[in-house]
Amino acid sequence: MSAAEVARRDGPLAMICGGGSLPLAVADSVAAGGRKVLLFPLRGFADAAAYEKREHIWVHLGQFGTVARVARAQGCRDIVCLGSVVRPSLWRLRPDFFTLKALPHIIKAYRGGDNHLLSNVGRVIERHGFRFLGAHEVAPEILARPGVLGRGQPSARDDADIALGFAYLRAAGPFDVGQAVVVADKHVLAVEAAEGTDQMLARVAQLRESGRIGTRAGAGVLVKAAKPAQDRRFDLPSIGPRTVEGAARAALAGIAVAAGDTIVADPEQLVEAADAAKIFVIAVPPGSNG
Amino acid sequence: MSAAEVARRDGPLAMICGGGSLPLAVADSVAAGGRKVLLFPLRGFADAAAYEKREHIWVHLGQFGTVARVARAQGCRDIVCLGSVVRPSLWRLRPDFFTLKALPHIIKAYRGGDNHLLSNVGRVIERHGFRFLGAHEVAPEILARPGVLGRGQPSARDDADIALGFAYLRAAGPFDVGQAVVVADKHVLAVEAAEGTDQMLARVAQLRESGRIGTRAGAGVLVKAAKPAQDRRFDLPSIGPRTVEGAARAALAGIAVAAGDTIVADPEQLVEAADAAKIFVIAVPPGSNG
Repeated sequence: MSAAEVARRDGPLAMICGGGSLPLAVADSVAAGGRKVLLFPLRGFADAAAYEKREHIWVHLGQFGTVARVARAQGCRDIVCLGSVVRPSLWRLRPDFFTLKALPHIIKAYRGGDNHLLSNVGRVIERHGFRFLGAHEVAPEILARPGVLGRGQPSARDDADIALGFAYLRAAGPFDVGQAVVVADKHVLAVEAAEGTDQMLARVAQLRESGRIGTRAGAGVLVKAAKPAQDRRFDLPSIGPRTVEGAARAALAGIAVAAGDTIVADPEQLVEAADAAKIFVIAVPPGSNG
Repeated sequence: MSAAEVARRDGPLAMICGGGSLPLAVADSVAAGGRKVLLFPLRGFADAAAYEKREHIWVHLGQFGTVARVARAQGCRDIVCLGSVVRPSLWRLRPDFFTLKALPHIIKAYRGGDNHLLSNVGRVIERHGFRFLGAHEVAPEILARPGVLGRGQPSARDDADIALGFAYLRAAGPFDVGQAVVVADKHVLAVEAAEGTDQMLARVAQLRESGRIGTRAGAGVLVKAAKPAQDRRFDLPSIGPRTVEGAARAALAGIAVAAGDTIVADPEQLVEAADAAKIFVIAVPPGSNG
């Protein structure tokens, strides 16, 4: 079935868009396949300038009623949620009528980890009769394919750090903690939790500057993976040019992600940045990462 | 056997002292028991002002020859190493003749985690014919006893966070990563690796200020534990008044440590700070922590 046939059968795709360039990359990819997209940037997370030239409707986090009404009127069956939505304080949620009913569930989800919160959002969408899809289903071409992106290749020592990083993330996965770790010369330098990958990389850069990291500059790998129980429709680990810049500032040798399970935002700029910084970026096939 | 008898039989105690107030707390405790101590503060780590009024000999990290010579001349059999020694850059090591021979081993140890580095130091000390003891052996009264310190008590919700924190640290232990984690409402907010506990607490405080943590202020526990394979003679987790201040700035409910496996520095000041900040501090007996 061609993309155009999918578009006719399934109608436009509604996209709830958080921060970062990822939602627009997916939107472009879906639109290029002939399917119309309805953009719902999230106030406070999506970048206003990026949406100026596109048709869009601003929504607040929690206002799913607006999305549901517009999407239904336009004949949408499918909804994706993409982009960074840093775990909000409860007071930032402005629930509308529909979501108000779900609020006790949302508050309950807050007591658990991110996975609980996210799977709850998925349930709200499905309860309204939509299909809740992931980026990997509507734009599979944005996922990392096995192999290196760019010219850099990991050394044998980097391979050992990569294996240790994936093993660590597997062990920590059941605790619903972050998806990334920095390993240098078989030493775990930093573990991501609530702060996010960019902040963790900035921390490694600082530790290096202050001489608190014993390993030489140029050693170390950022390893990212999906949590074992993660709902891949909502959230997949993603890397982009900014990740490469952060890794370069932290004087790392490279970045390793799980092939097929990681979104690559702006791949051309990413490769350009990686080659300029002499940083390798590798997507490791499932089963061989550890 | 009384402390005085131990002192006669084993001679003075040589103490290699890193940063923080812990080495001097142990020195006072040992001296109060009637045993003489020889202090070797580490240049660049120990605080000069704190040693001014005591007999001491400054040494550089790696200059074990000086320690061995003086200790032997004074009839020492036992050596302890205490206080924070942030993993140094290799260029900060100034090896003397004795340690120079051990340098290849030390460099090799750098390729592994902290545990490898530390156990290597223990081997160097023992190769010179000394006994390498831990603070828990020379001053057992500085270890946390089961129960709360101060007035605060954890709530049932705090108990759940404490259990999750210990479980996480057990799972991450084999990776030779940090010894502390912050858990709030069953959500892992921060994991300590190379940055140390104080910096991790500062990060949680920042994340809270910027609204990136969804849990209410006053929720959350700092959980510290020894790594499963950690050589307890070299390094035990420790808490002190500064830990309490960091936890208070991060708006946590309290601090949980493993009883018998954690050093409490300046216990009176710690209790005072904890009670003033309305923060609980609990030492959980082994076997019941998770």
